[in-house]
Amino acid sequence: MARLAWIDGNVMDLEQARISINDRALFFGDGCYEVVAVHSGCPFLLGPHLERLNRSLTELSIPFAGQDSFVTSIFEDLIRSYGEQQATIYLQISRGIAPRSHDWDPEMKPSLFATIGPQKRAPEDLFEKGVAVATTEDFRWGRCDIKSLNLLPNVMMKQKAKEKGLYEYVFLGPDDIVREATSSNVMIVSGGRVVTHPLDNRILPGITRAKVLEVAREGDIEYQERRFPKEEMLQAEEVFMTGTTTEVLPVVEVDSVRIADGKMGPVTRDLQQRLERLLRENS
Amino acid sequence: MARLAWIDGNVMDLEQARISINDRALFFGDGCYEVVAVHSGCPFLLGPHLERLNRSLTELSIPFAGQDSFVTSIFEDLIRSYGEQQATIYLQISRGIAPRSHDWDPEMKPSLFATIGPQKRAPEDLFEKGVAVATTEDFRWGRCDIKSLNLLPNVMMKQKAKEKGLYEYVFLGPDDIVREATSSNVMIVSGGRVVTHPLDNRILPGITRAKVLEVAREGDIEYQERRFPKEEMLQAEEVFMTGTTTEVLPVVEVDSVRIADGKMGPVTRDLQQRLERLLRENS
Repeated sequence: MARLAWIDGNVMDLEQARISINDRALFFGDGCYEVVAVHSGCPFLLGPHLERLNRSLTELSIPFAGQDSFVTSIFEDLIRSYGEQQATIYLQISRGIAPRSHDWDPEMKPSLFATIGPQKRAPEDLFEKGVAVATTEDFRWGRCDIKSLNLLPNVMMKQKAKEKGLYEYVFLGPDDIVREATSSNVMIVSGGRVVTHPLDNRILPGITRAKVLEVAREGDIEYQERRFPKEEMLQAEEVFMTGTTTEVLPVVEVDSVRIADGKMGPVTRDLQQRLERLLRENS
Repeated sequence: MARLAWIDGNVMDLEQARISINDRALFFGDGCYEVVAVHSGCPFLLGPHLERLNRSLTELSIPFAGQDSFVTSIFEDLIRSYGEQQATIYLQISRGIAPRSHDWDPEMKPSLFATIGPQKRAPEDLFEKGVAVATTEDFRWGRCDIKSLNLLPNVMMKQKAKEKGLYEYVFLGPDDIVREATSSNVMIVSGGRVVTHPLDNRILPGITRAKVLEVAREGDIEYQERRFPKEEMLQAEEVFMTGTTTEVLPVVEVDSVRIADGKMGPVTRDLQQRLERLLRENS
């Protein structure tokens, strides 16, 4: 099935879709986005995605927050036209269209498009055997809590990971504090508890991150949101990543150091299965 | 005269210009750019702009560096079609066009466009009476030496400056070290010498910055490239900004503190006149 794009109420072949050269997304990355997985023909965790989108829009002062039913109807259009039960939707909203100038007219109309294509997911075998990652100094901007279009450090390090046969790079803050990976949140199991970086302006408030903590709570798996150093990750009982396309993915090697026995651990497996159940139940 | 765009060898009305929705500039800000002033019908300081463009491309691993004569011919096409002696050219090169994915095919073809429009310049009276700026913590990424399309912090702070009646915000690093402004480099006169932040990954290697230091040298005006704190800027004899559209612009107020007597100082005026002479002589 060919990928599709929604622009200004029209659904078209993605390859034919064009946008104005004056879109501020193009000049400045001046906008935000969401990636939503479609399972069983329905957007998965749509509510939290819309909530985060609204937050990004508000933080960027793009006057489009709260158009939930409009956005939902775009998704429905795309899913209907695409005709597949499993898919991935991408939605992007920029500040708008105007000849290039750093400042803007607060009255300008935001510019929106969405696309739909095949489900993006890590290769199946990795969900069992796990992946290798490496760490790098976090050189991103100071507002990684906004899901913005300023993603150069992320794409640069994702490509470098690919070149080195790694799945991801993990960004470290001062004192080697583990923040998150180029396109996933990072969790460890340390002293029997799941531990992950608390929400602040240095990490993305991951939808899957929140869902995994929620299912941990339901499963009486203890967790802590606190900062932890790389050293604690290397000595952890388990390490895994979470994300919309990553789901719950075991990490078995960090900076060429094997984590525990190098196999997916029981807590990771438990959380992976709980999330998978939710994905299957989605309707 | 209507603004024009150059895309794939065609010059067209900017308002009509469209690009693919799959351009990586749009998704990730995955590209770089240059803004070149046209004086007397010729691109001003074209050589240094091309050199910096090539550096940005190389740092981003976009295989397009060294196409100087091709880029120059695009500029000539645009200037001829536009028909004005004074103008501003914008050139943008992204990694290329492909369905959204963080990683990329190293063989992918870069995507290029350029636009031309009226000369962008600060309002005439500001070059005499100067401007007010304020400082803010630098929350940009760690590779500000690359002239990339990841400009959200810059546009956010430029807009905030406008809202507060300021010309710019100046980004401060740790220990209140003065780096640069949202779209200009910053220089002060301290102890009789021009002082500006040295080139490193925290500031853009400004073309006008380099030219101003060059004319300072020719005019036997001493200068130092060294880090200096905000406190030294507040107590400086003079403060000014440099940039392609800023040229040499006096700063008479920083964080609501008047600089010296609140008027353009003699060193700023000297450098401004020397740069202006070069602009007029451009041919």
